[in-house]
Amino acid sequence: MNRIITLTTDFGLSDEYVGVIKGVILARAPAAAIVDLSHFIPRHDIRRAALLIKSAYRYFPPATIHLIVVDPGVGSSRKLIMLQANDHFFLAPDNGVLSFILDQAEVQAIHEVQCEKYFLSPVSTTFHGRDILAPVAAEMAAGLAPETVGAAIAPEELQKLEITAARFDQAQHIMAGEITAIDHFGNLQTNITEHDLIYLLDSQKSSLTIRVKDRKIKGVRSAYNQEEPGGLLAIINSKGYLEIAVNQGSAAKLLAAAVMDRVTAAMS
Amino acid sequence: MNRIITLTTDFGLSDEYVGVIKGVILARAPAAAIVDLSHFIPRHDIRRAALLIKSAYRYFPPATIHLIVVDPGVGSSRKLIMLQANDHFFLAPDNGVLSFILDQAEVQAIHEVQCEKYFLSPVSTTFHGRDILAPVAAEMAAGLAPETVGAAIAPEELQKLEITAARFDQAQHIMAGEITAIDHFGNLQTNITEHDLIYLLDSQKSSLTIRVKDRKIKGVRSAYNQEEPGGLLAIINSKGYLEIAVNQGSAAKLLAAAVMDRVTAAMS
Amino acid sequence: MNRIITLTTDFGLSDEYVGVIKGVILARAPAAAIVDLSHFIPRHDIRRAALLIKSAYRYFPPATIHLIVVDPGVGSSRKLIMLQANDHFFLAPDNGVLSFILDQAEVQAIHEVQCEKYFLSPVSTTFHGRDILAPVAAEMAAGLAPETVGAAIAPEELQKLEITAARFDQAQHIMAGEITAIDHFGNLQTNITEHDLIYLLDSQKSSLTIRVKDRKIKGVRSAYNQEEPGGLLAIINSKGYLEIAVNQGSAAKLLAAAVMDRVTAAMS
Repeated sequence: MNRIITLTTDFGLSDEYVGVIKGVILARAPAAAIVDLSHFIPRHDIRRAALLIKSAYRYFPPATIHLIVVDPGVGSSRKLIMLQANDHFFLAPDNGVLSFILDQAEVQAIHEVQCEKYFLSPVSTTFHGRDILAPVAAEMAAGLAPETVGAAIAPEELQKLEITAARFDQAQHIMAGEITAIDHFGNLQTNITEHDLIYLLDSQKSSLTIRVKDRKIKGVRSAYNQEEPGGLLAIINSKGYLEIAVNQGSAAKLLAAAVMDRVTAAMS
Repeated sequence: MNRIITLTTDFGLSDEYVGVIKGVILARAPAAAIVDLSHFIPRHDIRRAALLIKSAYRYFPPATIHLIVVDPGVGSSRKLIMLQANDHFFLAPDNGVLSFILDQAEVQAIHEVQCEKYFLSPVSTTFHGRDILAPVAAEMAAGLAPETVGAAIAPEELQKLEITAARFDQAQHIMAGEITAIDHFGNLQTNITEHDLIYLLDSQKSSLTIRVKDRKIKGVRSAYNQEEPGGLLAIINSKGYLEIAVNQGSAAKLLAAAVMDRVTAAMS
Repeated sequence: MNRIITLTTDFGLSDEYVGVIKGVILARAPAAAIVDLSHFIPRHDIRRAALLIKSAYRYFPPATIHLIVVDPGVGSSRKLIMLQANDHFFLAPDNGVLSFILDQAEVQAIHEVQCEKYFLSPVSTTFHGRDILAPVAAEMAAGLAPETVGAAIAPEELQKLEITAARFDQAQHIMAGEITAIDHFGNLQTNITEHDLIYLLDSQKSSLTIRVKDRKIKGVRSAYNQEEPGGLLAIINSKGYLEIAVNQGSAAKLLAAAVMDRVTAAMS
């Protein structure tokens, strides 16, 4: 059995932490295929990790095990949990990092991770990714029944982040959202979906005006290079969200934009 | 079948983009071995990616599939192509990124990538690496005949970068080249080959003078530490090119050197 | 056979160097599982690499092959060696990078790497990781008997780093050590072990005072968040060493601390 285990952490790649997790996994599940999603989540940025895993998991085959170690509460009484949703498995601290999965996917099971016989011994107080989650992920990859990792938990017992969807403002007839993430290219992802825009405009995308940081953008492009190099544009990104970008440049730099900055869409 | 797929992109490793490509591949070709060549190609730097894939591919076994996603034209009418050369397979946008392969390797087949039935659905306008190239690479790793990906294309129809070789200046009796790339260590790779130097000097390397950025370097070393720590030196690098380096330091910093800066070699 | 090969280098991830090593390995050992430990060892920082491999190797299963390429003397007469210790295999330059393994693990065999028939041909003067160590690691993963790589060497013939253990100062009744490494989070690892503290204090950890950079820290915590966000704390880290940290912050920044800075522990 060649099960896939994905890793999402805020560990960076300078230290041995990620490699050690892989060693623990391969010692117990030699045929596991381990895939790095990101180890550059900003430290303790649970929301960024939550957005990333939401965007990524669906591209993996069913039964993939997703290990998420962004864990400011390590060593405290926060739970570690195993969530089964949309036929995927998620192992993570109970700190809200699975909020978007809980919000959007069909939850099939939630269990606390309590199967101590599989933990490394002794368990450190500072690295539960290595000592608890990695060995349990490996055991699951090697055949451990997911429901045996510990007691069942109800969804309402879990920590959740506040999720701010784009809102339609009836009075002004605008769709108001915000920047949720900035990627490597400086592209600004928003929480306004293609669906939100269609609702607003009956698909007349060309007559939309997007406003962000005192700039107006006319229309929605279907390719970055429909704008001149250096030009600001709006586009529906590969995740289905409205994105503000600069062709061959960085919208984050051009606009000095940050996560949570307001973005609106309206009829011209 | 355990086929190798290499990845070369300008995506960085902060976002989920690389991981998602791996998910798409493993969902269709679970036994594929995926190897990262680099995800830190400077954004849209087609020439840098072209040099990197030329230097790297030959160290992989025949039939390796090389996926290159440095794609400023994504969403426009630029083609995606499958090139078979020297028994390797290359999947990339038709933007010149395969110029050095086309120049140096034996071309065995070129096809446009048009096999829509294998693409993700819907295909986004901004991420063809995920939606088109990754699934096609996976299908090829799983047995799809390469010539079935689309219509054959003649080599002369492809976009190509200008390739500037080192030139021998008869009048001054110097070999004139330039810096082509700067690596992690600040070593300066040039386009002057060991062969060029032999031509110039009948192998009398010790009597060579290298000139770069108003500095003269006498002779060519065979190990970095033949120079004092901090000392500037010339060496034939592991790719067979003349390289300017500093023992235990950065030639790029010491010389404030950049890609395309002139480098010459002459008899002393 | 699915043998694991780990990689530790100072190559960074921008260039093709790491990918090329993987190509060389997979061409000869297609079933090898290759795990990156770190490619961000500061250039030529043998001590940092030595600490990292010591911390990491034990989490991998027996018979894992650890390839370490931090090699300022490449091309000179320094030896390349194969060390078998605690049932693991280490391939590295003889420059001290295996000092902590030699100091702490049971040495089972040491051989010079001289099996030229397995090297790439020609061997470059600047990249022995690719041309010598990678193919030999691959051959070992594919079944080559480790003792056949070259002549046996006695441990006392090897280069070794000076290892500075924490010292108990009888007069002042303090345990005096130093910072050995700073991780991605800015946590300061010391060379004072949990065992050293127990010796000092008969386990009365709560009455300890830690001193570093003119700051006093009272007691040793068992979780980062037992201190307020931004607060300085001492903790036993996941490797069993005293660590100075800031909850949700960087101790390295707060204290302007550096490797080799003095750290002491004493009864309050």
